[in-house]
Amino acid sequence: MRSFSFYERVSRAFHVYPSLSKLLIVSTVSGGGFIAYAEASSPNDALSPPSSEAEPKKKKVVVLGTGWAGTSFVKSLSNPSYDVHVISPRNYFAFTPLLPSVTCGTVEARSIVEPIRNIVRKKNYDACYWEGECYKIDAQNKKVYCRPVPNNLNGNEEFVVDYDYLIIAMGARPNTFNTPGVEENCHFLKEVEDAQEIRRSVIDSFEKASLPNVSDDERKRILHFVIVGGGPTGVEFAAELHDFVNEDLINLYPLAKDSAKITLLEAADHILNMFDKRITVFAEQKFQRDGIDVKLGSMVVKVTDKEISTKARVNGETTSIPYGMVVWSTGIGTHPVIRDFMKQIGQTNRRALATDEWLRVEGSDSIYALGDCATINQRKVMEDILAIFSKADKDNSGTLTVKEFQEVIEDICERYPQVGLYLKNKKMYDIVDLLKEAKGDVAKESIELNIEEFKSALSEVDSQMKNLPATAQVAAQQGKYLANCFNRMEECTNFPEGPLRFRGEGRHRFRPFRYRHLGQFAPLGGEQTAAQLPGDWVSIGHSSQWLWYSVYASKLVSWRTRALVITDWTRRFVFGRDSSRI
Amino acid sequence: MRSFSFYERVSRAFHVYPSLSKLLIVSTVSGGGFIAYAEASSPNDALSPPSSEAEPKKKKVVVLGTGWAGTSFVKSLSNPSYDVHVISPRNYFAFTPLLPSVTCGTVEARSIVEPIRNIVRKKNYDACYWEGECYKIDAQNKKVYCRPVPNNLNGNEEFVVDYDYLIIAMGARPNTFNTPGVEENCHFLKEVEDAQEIRRSVIDSFEKASLPNVSDDERKRILHFVIVGGGPTGVEFAAELHDFVNEDLINLYPLAKDSAKITLLEAADHILNMFDKRITVFAEQKFQRDGIDVKLGSMVVKVTDKEISTKARVNGETTSIPYGMVVWSTGIGTHPVIRDFMKQIGQTNRRALATDEWLRVEGSDSIYALGDCATINQRKVMEDILAIFSKADKDNSGTLTVKEFQEVIEDICERYPQVGLYLKNKKMYDIVDLLKEAKGDVAKESIELNIEEFKSALSEVDSQMKNLPATAQVAAQQGKYLANCFNRMEECTNFPEGPLRFRGEGRHRFRPFRYRHLGQFAPLGGEQTAAQLPGDWVSIGHSSQWLWYSVYASKLVSWRTRALVITDWTRRFVFGRDSSRI
Repeated sequence: MRSFSFYERVSRAFHVYPSLSKLLIVSTVSGGGFIAYAEASSPNDALSPPSSEAEPKKKKVVVLGTGWAGTSFVKSLSNPSYDVHVISPRNYFAFTPLLPSVTCGTVEARSIVEPIRNIVRKKNYDACYWEGECYKIDAQNKKVYCRPVPNNLNGNEEFVVDYDYLIIAMGARPNTFNTPGVEENCHFLKEVEDAQEIRRSVIDSFEKASLPNVSDDERKRILHFVIVGGGPTGVEFAAELHDFVNEDLINLYPLAKDSAKITLLEAADHILNMFDKRITVFAEQKFQRDGIDVKLGSMVVKVTDKEISTKARVNGETTSIPYGMVVWSTGIGTHPVIRDFMKQIGQTNRRALATDEWLRVEGSDSIYALGDCATINQRKVMEDILAIFSKADKDNSGTLTVKEFQEVIEDICERYPQVGLYLKNKKMYDIVDLLKEAKGDVAKESIELNIEEFKSALSEVDSQMKNLPATAQVAAQQGKYLANCFNRMEECTNFPEGPLRFRGEGRHRFRPFRYRHLGQFAPLGGEQTAAQLPGDWVSIGHSSQWLWYSVYASKLVSWRTRALVITDWTRRFVFGRDSSRI
Repeated sequence: MRSFSFYERVSRAFHVYPSLSKLLIVSTVSGGGFIAYAEASSPNDALSPPSSEAEPKKKKVVVLGTGWAGTSFVKSLSNPSYDVHVISPRNYFAFTPLLPSVTCGTVEARSIVEPIRNIVRKKNYDACYWEGECYKIDAQNKKVYCRPVPNNLNGNEEFVVDYDYLIIAMGARPNTFNTPGVEENCHFLKEVEDAQEIRRSVIDSFEKASLPNVSDDERKRILHFVIVGGGPTGVEFAAELHDFVNEDLINLYPLAKDSAKITLLEAADHILNMFDKRITVFAEQKFQRDGIDVKLGSMVVKVTDKEISTKARVNGETTSIPYGMVVWSTGIGTHPVIRDFMKQIGQTNRRALATDEWLRVEGSDSIYALGDCATINQRKVMEDILAIFSKADKDNSGTLTVKEFQEVIEDICERYPQVGLYLKNKKMYDIVDLLKEAKGDVAKESIELNIEEFKSALSEVDSQMKNLPATAQVAAQQGKYLANCFNRMEECTNFPEGPLRFRGEGRHRFRPFRYRHLGQFAPLGGEQTAAQLPGDWVSIGHSSQWLWYSVYASKLVSWRTRALVITDWTRRFVFGRDSSRI
């Protein structure tokens, strides 16, 4: 149906616009010509089995959220034996890495979104979408309570949806760290609406500053843009804003030329501190050259309507800076619904829902959580050390030979990825080296460890455990992983492919989720981008900007968004950014 | 400065994107290939002289409004001896004929706007723009009082601007005819923001209607779209909405297929009643085939949050219809500031500011008004009949010979255009025929009229006077006319080119404003457009759709908006309209 109408449209278009064929070819070439930066698909993903194994009739899967995790799950699910219901207050998926570009009109908001209904209706399984906000999860009765999204005149009633499996992918909220005045006076940058509002606000500031009765001091205040948080979003926004002001706005607002100022506040010692040191230094130097004032080690303690107060970490000194607009982009906080649900299942005092390595929420049977609202609670080797030992010690001799150990080694590394990381960091190429280290200088074949020696050999490995960052990349991979598990649920129940269950019988049904870091970008403005790719490969400058363009163009959800974003970039090159306050 | 950065951008772009050159050529061709539909420029425009004639230093011209009239004035003004200040709550000009297309995403809002600062800074005169709303005009002291536009956190104070000449071009407000509930429950369609809100509302209605707990009746109510007013805007919106629903939305919202309904309410006997009868009939029949319910002769008497009550003009019967969304598009009302100003200068009980034929506000010296906020008060021949007679009767004989009459005939026709219209309607080719008619069957040369006979000859002509419609075309022509007068103010003061002053000495400085109707379009959906061009030429169907595309593309303010609108059309052809609620 859809493809028909698409072809119909195209042929109609070609019929009447002969020149269109050229246009289409050009955009296809420029789209396709971008370096394909393929995301390596983890071939053998896996998931812990829910208690009820057999699925005679269609199981109802409810997905909460249409962000990276939820959309990636919906897109990758391909098993027609599910009945999928997607519930989210946003009826579209947004390509969030381009949000900072939307704030300044380098890319239009509508170009980076794809209606979830467009995605859902192409699937081979039964799927539907409901625009609503989940306000309560009842795990006991397997129900979620939802209400239509707020801006709703013809008020519908709330609705209740039951599920067999629940996928929580609601993302996170901005984290204000309870700093007074932040909610009231700051802009956030998490949603498409935020980006649009920031854009309007920036233009508005320039208009306000140009009014005839504004004093020089007041103009300086109005045009002082403060960004709190030196992470990738904050840095990219600062860079975009700098370009917007210097490439477009100062031509239109002559008075603003000497008054506009951008300040970036970062509580830590450096901006972009999740990146390689080389990138950090480059970024800081570039910002200095650009006149962006980077204030390191300064924590925001209060925001009023016209002033922002910071405290220096070094000497505790407090300063108040007059500002016109603040964008708050520091870390993420918990969604109230998630917080309530965590209380319900006994996970208190955490930032996010804890799941096992198969993304299943701890303490719940058929609920999975992924993306920014969840963290994987990687099991420690030390917690299971006795079970591992006894499983490995096949002859029950009370000691472990190298041969016995080698038989379970693969399962251990799969179940406890920190072991592999530890070996890599220690530059050990064989896990037997670990045992050797514990045992001292003994011939490899004759090594035999008792439980205490085994414990001491592995005592350090858990230090390698790290939480995954709250990024789009992690969320997208998790969604895909979980969908693959759901796709192969029946197959893997019969032929489990996961690691040995050390504390139980048999094998885990699926392999645990494993994150593959594919690199990270930080656009720094002026067509300079820093890229940190796997293998510690760092690239800074114009070439990375092109890599950035290519990757982002190839990653966009659909040919539609790809074409839109590329034409937006072209428009920006040719005509500059628009300064209309709409 | 600007052009430099533009070329810099382009050359940089071509340097790095070789394929871009193709793209640019294609869009230039498709833009330029559209039939040029040139607006005939009235070569000898004119304006009544303000009292102070000589202009030793730069005169300060304050323009209120950035709509069609204001922008057209600013664009056409080219005399560097003015100091121009533009004040408007919108820092952009919007190409309003495409607003109905924005409501359904056929064209993006940003594509039809051009920042006023972009227009202003290309001018050769001193010009600046202030984003603010005029809330009071003080004609006595030649001052306007303004405040920054509302959505303003860092509240500036109000500001006062003085002027030498004031150009009022603030447009109009939607007219609710004081119908209860309209302000609270209806959408209007006058501003870009309105169109964006309507778009969100339409999507929202479809989402609401698809929720699981919605009954069939409730779904039908939510998806009942009512349009009040069968003028061009209402009709075009109905057509756009019908296409949006049937080409795009029903594929995405399967439940909506049989529930969505569009009703068009018109108080008169026909929709599009300012058009030719053939167009009206065609439109009504097309709407009937499309399933759009056109209810003629029904006046809206009340709107509640879920029902709209109408009264049939024929039998006075009242009906209540449940609805989901109402768009109110019936005529225009007066801006409160204009109403206050009218009180100040003694023009009460009028819808719009009355001006003379040179667009100067009656009763004010240096204030001009144009566009939707003004109407031209054409002077009646009968009011001046004595003055005309005595001016024409050069020899003071008390009678008028044909020769005497012929000498002033041109001035009469210029000063009182109704005379020309009257002759044309009566199919008289010579004005002398008029006199002949009064005098009976006499040889042309021997006609001689006394004052009473002269009066009776011209007694009917004033019946031909018509108010100009409140359209973009009128506003744009007025802006251009007035700018031309300002451009040639000094020249025309020394060598007046207007008609004779019948009630005074000498000639008017400028020719009076004369509107040239260039035709009108009514897009009816499904790529069918009705066009009514000068000379009663009517065209309906696909060919007019292409004419419509061409004219609108050629009329857009800048190459930027032209390229944007054309790419929007292309995108829509290829990908359909977007249904994301943003």
